[in-house]
Amino acid sequence: MPAIAQEQGSRDVLMVAWMNREALAATVARGEAVYWSRSRQRLWHKGEESGHVQKVHEIRLDCDEDVLLLTVTQLGHAASEPSIACHTGRHSCFFQRLEGGAQGRQWRPAEPVLKDPARIYGAKKG
Amino acid sequence: MPAIAQEQGSRDVLMVAWMNREALAATVARGEAVYWSRSRQRLWHKGEESGHVQKVHEIRLDCDEDVLLLTVTQLGHAASEPSIACHTGRHSCFFQRLEGGAQGRQWRPAEPVLKDPARIYGAKKG
Repeated sequence: MPAIAQEQGSRDVLMVAWMNREALAATVARGEAVYWSRSRQRLWHKGEESGHVQKVHEIRLDCDEDVLLLTVTQLGHAASEPSIACHTGRHSCFFQRLEGGAQGRQWRPAEPVLKDPARIYGAKKG
Repeated sequence: MPAIAQEQGSRDVLMVAWMNREALAATVARGEAVYWSRSRQRLWHKGEESGHVQKVHEIRLDCDEDVLLLTVTQLGHAASEPSIACHTGRHSCFFQRLEGGAQGRQWRPAEPVLKDPARIYGAKKG
């Protein structure tokens, strides 16, 4: 099921990833977000490659019991780093904003890149 | 694709519903959230039965372009009503919190019912 990560404090919605029972159990056990990577078909400890680990404070479930909401602290590779959740090096994955008038709407980036993705990862996304 | 509704001001995550292109276009045209009801297989103007309309301020798309984030004002049936997004009569659909220790965890309601669902709807959910 989809799992939303919301940042404690700022309350920004950082990202949505997927969780199954195993991922939820691993998240509870670690106290850090562990998602189910659909592309890799395995558990994905968020930050395992990037260092951008998410400390989990609270887990909620919605009324239909098919979406999770995690309250997290987004940690950086170093303590001095800004909060980066997105593999593009941005704070939040929701950086594209729908803009424009009757002439045609389009998605435009509305958040800066805080860190070059090439400096976050070796070859892989994580 | 999943669409998250986040309340402007409080920044609470209220609910997640589904949108297709048609629902997104209708949302933009109306300025109010129109989702795709998977159970009813039709466009669902949120609040059409409950009066709990969502005024949409901003629409964002994530990096994978498969999740939407709406910033909304949750309107009530009457101006004096509290902000209710959930069909259970609660503020947010994410009212179940994972609690408990090693003895076994469980989901427990963590938000009050603000309005009796029987008073929100006739026979149907909306």
